[in-house]
Amino acid sequence: MVRRNKTKIEYPNSLDFSINYGPFRIPNFILKKFQITPQTISFYPHQHAKNIVLSLANFLKVKYENLIISNGSTEIFFLLPQILKFKRATIITPSFWEYETTLSLNKVKITFFKLLPRNNFLLSKKEFEKSIKKSDCIYICNPNNPTSTYINKTLLLNLIKKFKDKLFIIDETYLLFFKDYKSKTLNNEATKINNLIVVSSLSKIFSIGGIRIGFCIASKKNISFIKRFKNPYSLNIFAESILPYLIKNTKYVNKTREFISIEKIRVYEKIKKISWLKPFKPEANFILARIENKKISPRKLIKYLLEHNIKIRECSRFGGLSNKYIRLSIKTKRENNILINSLKTFHKLYRH
Amino acid sequence: MVRRNKTKIEYPNSLDFSINYGPFRIPNFILKKFQITPQTISFYPHQHAKNIVLSLANFLKVKYENLIISNGSTEIFFLLPQILKFKRATIITPSFWEYETTLSLNKVKITFFKLLPRNNFLLSKKEFEKSIKKSDCIYICNPNNPTSTYINKTLLLNLIKKFKDKLFIIDETYLLFFKDYKSKTLNNEATKINNLIVVSSLSKIFSIGGIRIGFCIASKKNISFIKRFKNPYSLNIFAESILPYLIKNTKYVNKTREFISIEKIRVYEKIKKISWLKPFKPEANFILARIENKKISPRKLIKYLLEHNIKIRECSRFGGLSNKYIRLSIKTKRENNILINSLKTFHKLYRH
Repeated sequence: MVRRNKTKIEYPNSLDFSINYGPFRIPNFILKKFQITPQTISFYPHQHAKNIVLSLANFLKVKYENLIISNGSTEIFFLLPQILKFKRATIITPSFWEYETTLSLNKVKITFFKLLPRNNFLLSKKEFEKSIKKSDCIYICNPNNPTSTYINKTLLLNLIKKFKDKLFIIDETYLLFFKDYKSKTLNNEATKINNLIVVSSLSKIFSIGGIRIGFCIASKKNISFIKRFKNPYSLNIFAESILPYLIKNTKYVNKTREFISIEKIRVYEKIKKISWLKPFKPEANFILARIENKKISPRKLIKYLLEHNIKIRECSRFGGLSNKYIRLSIKTKRENNILINSLKTFHKLYRH
Repeated sequence: MVRRNKTKIEYPNSLDFSINYGPFRIPNFILKKFQITPQTISFYPHQHAKNIVLSLANFLKVKYENLIISNGSTEIFFLLPQILKFKRATIITPSFWEYETTLSLNKVKITFFKLLPRNNFLLSKKEFEKSIKKSDCIYICNPNNPTSTYINKTLLLNLIKKFKDKLFIIDETYLLFFKDYKSKTLNNEATKINNLIVVSSLSKIFSIGGIRIGFCIASKKNISFIKRFKNPYSLNIFAESILPYLIKNTKYVNKTREFISIEKIRVYEKIKKISWLKPFKPEANFILARIENKKISPRKLIKYLLEHNIKIRECSRFGGLSNKYIRLSIKTKRENNILINSLKTFHKLYRH
């Protein structure tokens, strides 16, 4: 474990590049605010976590009535198709599995809009407009997982305003890693526009998948409708207690954003130099890459890295991607260098 | 705080009789099994908490495939009407608010079966059979909250077997306080019968409303159906870590059950002697009572008790009950005596 006393931010010792967490662990002092005692865990969570909604609303610069805090973003994704009774949805592929799963469960017909490697997985507005014509709702992960591509705000807003009869559900989980999150998020627009819902998970930016916190921003009308159907006690008392301290610690978030903005480009440039691997330009805190050499077995690569205590994400389960694709999260400089060196060594071994 | 070194069970210092928790706090050593660190909370919960399902299944003597662990029983109650598309339900009144709320949300027509004070809130089988005729699902809280009445297992099983086309959803949250829980629960029957689902919360028996654990037992077929629609990550890593230790600590549960079986009768007999208060015979870990003296203002009673640091549950929000009804949970002997004495003192003051 590397510890920088200057910033009091801990560095994780695991080399798990397969999960899209930020590179730094949250400072220990935040967790010390909450003591696990029989007393503390006897307190029921507040209805709709109302004791902390204002705190998160302030952080996000929206009003109390425009915000829901949820049990991860997953709770929202499972709920929306159930209560909004979509008939047909457009989802981008490859993307996060939960959109397809939760829509299929509710028998929503799905139009898949394919992002293609030959276009560097970038979205063509004209083609996309065609694909959403028959849909009543559109799911967009922005930036997208696993492609790490980003659709700019103006393009999105134009679409949303042009197709007022369609509901846009924008997952901004990875936008939270952007230095200019405040100017790029659609949070504020979502409070005013009825056909836009922004959903975000806090698991990735704070590396806290275990305590289950996500949020959802929409118009007052949409929020009250969703709240009616949502389990009002889905947060746990631990998540409720810790959230205000997490968001108060702006140093942690700022440091993460600052670091990612530079490090993702550095790692991208390094990987570009590996002849048998093609990285796609990353906008988020992870990089999608493709194994270009047909003689290289993806299975062997994964195995080799695991033997060296390095976990990466193999992407064959993402629609449209084969096992030639891997996803690498941006971790600390030291850790990223270990990964890059291991990738290089793997190839040297392979050649002999 | 009173501490019995012999058993290492802590006694709470608050006098909150308004929540239906057991009288004892879980031992601290159980909580020490889990350390809150950036590392521990970075672990995602397991899909459908599959790492601990077997442990709870063993405790309940059912199979892995017959059990779901949920974010409190609330998650199950919000989910069932959404996915099972009930048309008409019978619910008992007064009872737990969630049945009515979640059914209404999903536009299920509700037949209310009224338990009457003149029958000591006991259920008449003949009348109940009539009331469920047109329903496709029946919610029964057993023992019932807030009446603390119990419907015997044979009667229930006969109903369930007689009306095979109707789904019976039995909430056994308070049955967990029974000394003979193992012989009285319908858990085992639920695994074999397709029209029976047993739902229970662990919040009350362990006094852990803050960490959100409930469960649901049904046939393999029913369980796989519910699992498909359930948020697979709704438990938090803390709940997952602590549950196996909670259920391994059989001493705590046994002590609670043993104590409640005797103490509920003692408190009931004591309250019976208070002329202006009529308690109904309790089967669960709480007592429903009615203020019999018209000159006594329920508002004044609540206020008086609060001034003496005692919280009780006023019942006017339960269907069919007025503010003349109060609900008192069974706490430790010392605490129950403080409550009884305060009730007596209140009346003395009132007379003058």
